Amino acid sequence: MRGIMSEALRTDLYQLTMLQAYWKSGHNPQATFDYFVRKIPFGSYLVTAGLGYVLDYIENLHFDGDDIDYLRTLGFDDGFLDALADFRFTGDILAMPEGSIAFPLEPAIRVTAPIMEAQLVETFILNKMNFSTLIATKSSRVVHAARGRAIAEFGLRRAQGDGHLEATRATYIGGCASTSNLLAGKTFGIPVSGTMAHSFVTSFDHEIDAYRAYAEAFPKKCFLLIDTYNSIKGAKKAVIVGKELEKKGEKLLGVRLDSGDLCELSKQVRKILDDAGLHYVKIVASGDINEWKIDELMARGARIDMFGVGTELITGRPTPALDGIYKLSDVVEHGRHKPKMKLSEETVKATLPGKKRVWRMVENGEFIKDIIALEDEVIDNAWPLLEQTVKNGKIVCSRPSLDMIRQRALENFSNLPDEYKKLDGAPVYPVDFSQGLVSLREAIVEKIRKEEIRA
Amino acid sequence: MRGIMSEALRTDLYQLTMLQAYWKSGHNPQATFDYFVRKIPFGSYLVTAGLGYVLDYIENLHFDGDDIDYLRTLGFDDGFLDALADFRFTGDILAMPEGSIAFPLEPAIRVTAPIMEAQLVETFILNKMNFSTLIATKSSRVVHAARGRAIAEFGLRRAQGDGHLEATRATYIGGCASTSNLLAGKTFGIPVSGTMAHSFVTSFDHEIDAYRAYAEAFPKKCFLLIDTYNSIKGAKKAVIVGKELEKKGEKLLGVRLDSGDLCELSKQVRKILDDAGLHYVKIVASGDINEWKIDELMARGARIDMFGVGTELITGRPTPALDGIYKLSDVVEHGRHKPKMKLSEETVKATLPGKKRVWRMVENGEFIKDIIALEDEVIDNAWPLLEQTVKNGKIVCSRPSLDMIRQRALENFSNLPDEYKKLDGAPVYPVDFSQGLVSLREAIVEKIRKEEIRA
Repeated sequence: MRGIMSEALRTDLYQLTMLQAYWKSGHNPQATFDYFVRKIPFGSYLVTAGLGYVLDYIENLHFDGDDIDYLRTLGFDDGFLDALADFRFTGDILAMPEGSIAFPLEPAIRVTAPIMEAQLVETFILNKMNFSTLIATKSSRVVHAARGRAIAEFGLRRAQGDGHLEATRATYIGGCASTSNLLAGKTFGIPVSGTMAHSFVTSFDHEIDAYRAYAEAFPKKCFLLIDTYNSIKGAKKAVIVGKELEKKGEKLLGVRLDSGDLCELSKQVRKILDDAGLHYVKIVASGDINEWKIDELMARGARIDMFGVGTELITGRPTPALDGIYKLSDVVEHGRHKPKMKLSEETVKATLPGKKRVWRMVENGEFIKDIIALEDEVIDNAWPLLEQTVKNGKIVCSRPSLDMIRQRALENFSNLPDEYKKLDGAPVYPVDFSQGLVSLREAIVEKIRKEEIRA
Repeated sequence: MRGIMSEALRTDLYQLTMLQAYWKSGHNPQATFDYFVRKIPFGSYLVTAGLGYVLDYIENLHFDGDDIDYLRTLGFDDGFLDALADFRFTGDILAMPEGSIAFPLEPAIRVTAPIMEAQLVETFILNKMNFSTLIATKSSRVVHAARGRAIAEFGLRRAQGDGHLEATRATYIGGCASTSNLLAGKTFGIPVSGTMAHSFVTSFDHEIDAYRAYAEAFPKKCFLLIDTYNSIKGAKKAVIVGKELEKKGEKLLGVRLDSGDLCELSKQVRKILDDAGLHYVKIVASGDINEWKIDELMARGARIDMFGVGTELITGRPTPALDGIYKLSDVVEHGRHKPKMKLSEETVKATLPGKKRVWRMVENGEFIKDIIALEDEVIDNAWPLLEQTVKNGKIVCSRPSLDMIRQRALENFSNLPDEYKKLDGAPVYPVDFSQGLVSLREAIVEKIRKEEIRA
């Protein structure tokens, strides 16, 4: 795999300064880190995504010669840089598969390796997991709000630069039906959709000229954008073109509204289409839409068959970042486990010590509650959520296709009780700590407090 | 340039469907599009960024064989796909250089080309310009709030995936002093900063062991993170290590606070350091910081020498997308200009017709007002803001280094009167329309209304 470009520098400088300090002090114990989210920005659940990127990264992790050359310019020690040239990831990773439903504090990824290795991979894991999980979760909410209407993702122009590709992948995992993004279509095989922009319409002398040119080019795939000048007049011209298509034995597929009161306009346009006998023509709505607006439109009886959602879906607006973190929970020195945790003046920033697993209790196909337990505790009547994905640096899990991941996410979501799917005001899903974890946590807090007094 | 990977599919499907419709109907007039922002999400001004990416893209724009193969699977016409194989950008682009200060409605990029070419490039221009300009603007606000204290960008772990690289570039243009992002350091030559995480501290049995290991590894570059257990106790241990460094003829550079009441803690920590004679040790603060928190900390007299800013800076939170748009303003058919505009039920969504330029009036080194005028109007006593960057498909401007762009942004910002720099409640900077533009707009609205009545 050395031919593939190194991703080793896709990290923070401080990972490398810490590595040099570990290396120089001979402090490289086996360490376990957990990736988890403290607080969910919207709703009660997360749809996990991004693990595929993490596994590719782990498999290929190494420093290229020019990476080392760059680090040398920053003043790192020659001996340390020599050691980096042979750097590989040799540890174990347990993870929830992509498309899992996760809740706050649950480790979605657990990394165990010599601390130099487990430390270095922190930033990449956070960058990929935080963003993909954020967008898959947002997508799940938008899809849920649409009550079965298809969601097309139209966000490339407002995406955060090159983040668009993994964002589109995550919207698909969350349940979107298609994307406007051709590169995502080519790269991932996601279905693509889209027809025309306002500039297409205004480039012609008359709106109907634009419609006819498009119908001529795509007689079997004709959607017309009707709001460039006036949506009602646009709909009437779409009817004319729809009738012309009928004469050729073709059918107008749909019209798109992109501004104005989408609910009212959709009802009026539906009536115009139906009165002309064009019952089969679909209405697509777009324009600064999000899960709350879709929910409201559906509640008001909008006659919309499909939504195009851009900015809010592709950036997670209003919360464009997930505060997922990667925290040290255990160190093994001289064969002895030393569970670790971070205290903090802010209680919410404290962490859970020890090597842990996550279990889920399910009844009649519905999620009941989750339990975070220590490694050696077995929880009866529950499913383990963490799977072994990497063993001694080698990937040991099978790699699912994107459609399999999407299918898994949809199935998991269908097993989540409805109350947790509410856009706002969903209750907190119960995540219990096992007796072993509670006891360990109390013991560690006690120990840290005592040491602080001694120090 | 054919060796470079094609970016042609980094676009929306609808650009390609429109292209096929233009191609099939033989409608490929010379067209002019403007990239501009309708509304600024925060503050009164924009710092433009992203043009460098646009120029690289334009220079290299072509469809690779596997792009064409992919489009064939979507059902595009063979004749059209043959035409795409020879596709190149042959038009002209005028643009504000990166690091300009721009205001709403001002074209920051103006593209003139056969409509098939000018249309295709829309999505890429929007993706790059919207995001880089958003982040450069956000960065400028954060830097301004810090009143001369350096800002280190720490956002990689919360960035929107692969968008991190262009985001970090934009934070540097906006005035940040450094980044934690090693790949950005290697790629763009941006200074890097960072030292240690909480996991480094907790991986040792005692906090002071971690400090000593770090001081040993980096005696000349030692910053210590002091809030893992208790910031005040951490500061006292940092003093011990600082004194140990002094005995070796070295100096502790700084300590970092990452949680708690940063203002109060900074004052207490400053006193602890000063009382021990460590006046030279700097205090760095980080942890969910943004421009408003920095402004408040400075106003309250916090003893902070440098800020590390992550999530909010790298994602633009709370507004993660700029609503920049790309609108058709002119078409030439049979040698005659046909100025174009989009009406809308929402007035704010209407656009400005005609080929335009932007002028800026400056007095005593301060910006007074801008004027959007038609191509053939010359505004006396004003600077033209759009420069020719591409002529007949070739780049004709010199390409500045990133440091030159950053310097230009800082100089432009220094010429913006202070009232427009307020974080909140800044007045609207005056952007006038020339008499020619006003008249043209009225004439076009009149014409569209008449045609709508006829239609």
